[in-house]
Amino acid sequence: MAEIVIIMGSESDRPHAEKISTALKAEGYAKPVGIHVASAHKQPRDVLKVLEKNAGRKVVYITIAGRSNALSGFVAGNCDAPVIACPPFSDKLDMLVNINSTLQMPSRVPVLTVLDPANAALGAMRIIALDDLDEQKKRDRQDGQVKQKSCEETSCAE
Amino acid sequence: MAEIVIIMGSESDRPHAEKISTALKAEGYAKPVGIHVASAHKQPRDVLKVLEKNAGRKVVYITIAGRSNALSGFVAGNCDAPVIACPPFSDKLDMLVNINSTLQMPSRVPVLTVLDPANAALGAMRIIALDDLDEQKKRDRQDGQVKQKSCEETSCAE
Amino acid sequence: MAEIVIIMGSESDRPHAEKISTALKAEGYAKPVGIHVASAHKQPRDVLKVLEKNAGRKVVYITIAGRSNALSGFVAGNCDAPVIACPPFSDKLDMLVNINSTLQMPSRVPVLTVLDPANAALGAMRIIALDDLDEQKKRDRQDGQVKQKSCEETSCAE
Amino acid sequence: MAEIVIIMGSESDRPHAEKISTALKAEGYAKPVGIHVASAHKQPRDVLKVLEKNAGRKVVYITIAGRSNALSGFVAGNCDAPVIACPPFSDKLDMLVNINSTLQMPSRVPVLTVLDPANAALGAMRIIALDDLDEQKKRDRQDGQVKQKSCEETSCAE
Amino acid sequence: MAEIVIIMGSESDRPHAEKISTALKAEGYAKPVGIHVASAHKQPRDVLKVLEKNAGRKVVYITIAGRSNALSGFVAGNCDAPVIACPPFSDKLDMLVNINSTLQMPSRVPVLTVLDPANAALGAMRIIALDDLDEQKKRDRQDGQVKQKSCEETSCAE
Amino acid sequence: MAEIVIIMGSESDRPHAEKISTALKAEGYAKPVGIHVASAHKQPRDVLKVLEKNAGRKVVYITIAGRSNALSGFVAGNCDAPVIACPPFSDKLDMLVNINSTLQMPSRVPVLTVLDPANAALGAMRIIALDDLDEQKKRDRQDGQVKQKSCEETSCAE
Amino acid sequence: MAEIVIIMGSESDRPHAEKISTALKAEGYAKPVGIHVASAHKQPRDVLKVLEKNAGRKVVYITIAGRSNALSGFVAGNCDAPVIACPPFSDKLDMLVNINSTLQMPSRVPVLTVLDPANAALGAMRIIALDDLDEQKKRDRQDGQVKQKSCEETSCAE
Amino acid sequence: MAEIVIIMGSESDRPHAEKISTALKAEGYAKPVGIHVASAHKQPRDVLKVLEKNAGRKVVYITIAGRSNALSGFVAGNCDAPVIACPPFSDKLDMLVNINSTLQMPSRVPVLTVLDPANAALGAMRIIALDDLDEQKKRDRQDGQVKQKSCEETSCAE
Repeated sequence: MAEIVIIMGSESDRPHAEKISTALKAEGYAKPVGIHVASAHKQPRDVLKVLEKNAGRKVVYITIAGRSNALSGFVAGNCDAPVIACPPFSDKLDMLVNINSTLQMPSRVPVLTVLDPANAALGAMRIIALDDLDEQKKRDRQDGQVKQKSCEETSCAE
Repeated sequence: MAEIVIIMGSESDRPHAEKISTALKAEGYAKPVGIHVASAHKQPRDVLKVLEKNAGRKVVYITIAGRSNALSGFVAGNCDAPVIACPPFSDKLDMLVNINSTLQMPSRVPVLTVLDPANAALGAMRIIALDDLDEQKKRDRQDGQVKQKSCEETSCAE
Repeated sequence: MAEIVIIMGSESDRPHAEKISTALKAEGYAKPVGIHVASAHKQPRDVLKVLEKNAGRKVVYITIAGRSNALSGFVAGNCDAPVIACPPFSDKLDMLVNINSTLQMPSRVPVLTVLDPANAALGAMRIIALDDLDEQKKRDRQDGQVKQKSCEETSCAE
Repeated sequence: MAEIVIIMGSESDRPHAEKISTALKAEGYAKPVGIHVASAHKQPRDVLKVLEKNAGRKVVYITIAGRSNALSGFVAGNCDAPVIACPPFSDKLDMLVNINSTLQMPSRVPVLTVLDPANAALGAMRIIALDDLDEQKKRDRQDGQVKQKSCEETSCAE
Repeated sequence: MAEIVIIMGSESDRPHAEKISTALKAEGYAKPVGIHVASAHKQPRDVLKVLEKNAGRKVVYITIAGRSNALSGFVAGNCDAPVIACPPFSDKLDMLVNINSTLQMPSRVPVLTVLDPANAALGAMRIIALDDLDEQKKRDRQDGQVKQKSCEETSCAE
Repeated sequence: MAEIVIIMGSESDRPHAEKISTALKAEGYAKPVGIHVASAHKQPRDVLKVLEKNAGRKVVYITIAGRSNALSGFVAGNCDAPVIACPPFSDKLDMLVNINSTLQMPSRVPVLTVLDPANAALGAMRIIALDDLDEQKKRDRQDGQVKQKSCEETSCAE
Repeated sequence: MAEIVIIMGSESDRPHAEKISTALKAEGYAKPVGIHVASAHKQPRDVLKVLEKNAGRKVVYITIAGRSNALSGFVAGNCDAPVIACPPFSDKLDMLVNINSTLQMPSRVPVLTVLDPANAALGAMRIIALDDLDEQKKRDRQDGQVKQKSCEETSCAE
Repeated sequence: MAEIVIIMGSESDRPHAEKISTALKAEGYAKPVGIHVASAHKQPRDVLKVLEKNAGRKVVYITIAGRSNALSGFVAGNCDAPVIACPPFSDKLDMLVNINSTLQMPSRVPVLTVLDPANAALGAMRIIALDDLDEQKKRDRQDGQVKQKSCEETSCAE
């Protein structure tokens, strides 16, 4: 099973990273989540070291950087792994101001953007589940239970 | 190796779908690309049929829907595969008006957003390469060549 | 007289639905207001069941869904009744971010958008009043009283 | 069957009005479409005369006014009929600049907003079909044919 | 000397109107400020009565209407006096959403927009001072004193 | 009768100034329109000279400056005359980007904003007509004719 | 070594100016920071006096003006020194509304925009350090220490 | 005299770089302008090599990168020289979408933003002129001539 590695641009992004790692565990991710702090603007060599250490291994990156997000594209541009960007917006206005620095990527820099931390975790889990069929089947059943329960609670579509 | 399946909301999105399937082949994707036309607003049962047919198989979806994009979340909400949304914006203004219908997903609907069709293809390839190490190694070499060539052409950082 | 049926995408939209049903009663709507919870992203079959149950009956739908609003277009695209979308925005910024997922409908998906819950109720009442002349006349008088009273209170246009 | 009456704020809006009346006929609307030109800013008494003439009759209004749209709210505030606003935007930027003058209505002014002229026509038809069951059933069959045809053309969901 | 007349669209705009009338008095406006409440959407005949009563008199209107501002253009379109629109925005976001319903006026509807209530008062005073030279000269001296004082307080440009 | 003086920030604004002076003449303005070119950013002393020359005279300024509009506030902050800002936007996007540099004035800087050049001219005419009753009465009749003619042409409100 | 001079448009901008002067001292700026208050809209002659007094001296200006920022362009247009604009936005929305009055400068008005006060200070220090090599070398070492410390604290890139 | 070095993120930015180097020569910059092509996303080591080569030399950087601008902050975060960002926007909409990736810099990353290429050149010249007084005096005279000529041409402020 592939590993999920979180890189965040600043120590102040840690609460956002923890939302994601908590969600990963809730989705059944069994390994410890690697979390690194390194700014693409200020410590690019540190970011490159993380990428080099993981080169040739099965890794999915989740990158967390606010304001002008150089980190996500920097990671996607310097490795061959899937990269999910989950920027830590403080509110919708922060999102409006800064989302385009995550979305407007140049050619050959495939950043996958997700706003909600739990959805970022779920997206990463779906990616690593592709090469683990049992994992996938287990999740199918679990998902079915969640949906059924949600329907029962709300008496939807009686 | 997982399959890549494109679902587009309208026949008018076909040129955008073809940009993606062309890019997939350029990245070395060997299988025929499945392309379906079904609107989540108008033919939801058709969309569900595509998802049911692929249930239990290794699939990465790329969804294409302009204006209010119900399709991407509809697909991600009704399957367990990775879903990359690549909305077919006519220009930056179209993007500004409509990008949030792709980004603002509810809980447990992990849509991965990518603006550029070639990056969507590359993102999908990275996902399916995770469980195919030889594929990945081949791409590593290829990428290196591309980068080296781009540097030579532009005499970068002499 | 036609029935008014509210469909909301999430249990968390209930306070917004209640504003509308309260306003409906204040406008003189005599029947119980049907309220359903079903997400177009996550429980599309439940939404379709609601629509099928009401097929062939005189119904006006009011749909309530925040963030990326797939529900309103999904309902309008899968029935022949008038559909009023009244998205539950938390504030003006939420409206700016998400209004276009309600407005940017494809062809043959006639969603009628109203921001204010009481206006959504009033709009639905005007629609069902069309085939109930006495109802309309009663409301005419009531409206006249409201306007006159409002003028008296504010000494407008002395 | 209720009548559909179009009021536009300026003679320059006529092409937009004609798109709507053409679509109404295509949807099976049998009566002549009443079209009036009267600016709420500049000829409010003319607008009021149209409303007074139709008072007590079964009418659905479609209002067309660009830039700062006073007309739609003016009509909705001075009659008891359903009012569909379909502003004639020249492009998406015009829409971004001016849509809020249509959406931000005060209390007791229930304007129903629709961007696409054909959808405005379809929305009006659904409203008047409520008190004409045969009309509705005829449209049901027609819609089914349209959908089926659209599916056949695109080989959706094979 | 011309009279300054405030028309506001709703009783809830009164605090904003009072900021303006307070500022008018502070600028030396000697007459009582006429304040009327009448919505262009809901009581257009009341607005017209105010305009008719003042026809042929020297009047400067200040109009106050939030959300979709039909009032300012309605007043400017139905009289020949100068009309200053001073919409009562609750904050900058409200301004962003609604400013264009004040700015986007049709031909022959000359609305003069001012955001700050005290500046609206000052703008009106400058207009009525044009035909009262002594008034103007008095204000010139007063303004000079204000500027000098402000400079002394801040030790600007030593 | 007061004089109307146009100040534009750059020679490139002349076509916009000519639209205004043409409209002024069409409204019956009898004097030659003074037009000055002086940038508040680059030739502030020249702007001040214009203002000093007109100090104590009955003047209405119309200021024309694109991009960051320092000129309008500079003029309003350094004279006691009414100042109408009519920025020369190339299109709606230019307006969205730059309108706030015209609107966001500090205290005691009463800039009156008008987008349409002909409306700016009409607004200035209404201001100077305040102290010229015959002028006003003549315009009243003229306006009536224009409105009547516009109604006849379009058969409004039959 | 060049001097750093702050000009702010209003006394209310002083807290913002003090953030910058505090940051300058933290960066090792040894001289007293000159702070002037003068509005380009209301006291342009005072601004010009500051510029004239410093003509021919080595100066870097930092200009602080909110709302419509005329000051920064006014300073850059009337001197030959580097001018850093650091507008005092109260929040991100204020920035969205007003940033363009700082950015949209005419030809030959080279305003250098920086949002963060500490970055404005650092930018000014880098400019004055160009002609003081020892200063620069001292800062190089200091910067190295800061970066190293930040890495140690966060265990980045282990 | 300090050197001016341009780094652009992509070969496609060369026309923008040439506008700047042409403007530099027009301002009297005597040395050859160094121009490098290196993407911070894709060739970060190449960018670092440029910075290392210039470490300890008197340099002003002008950085050119469109879409998500990682380059400007990357350069400012990894050197101690002044860095002017001049992003190559294709139009105002491109600017609206992407300007914040240039403006929203983290702490200790002092990017100086300028939109117009000629102003970026002029801003860089003012910086390097600080330690070259004769250069500055020469430019003072030149500027005076340009301004005087512009006044004569337009007969400003007669």
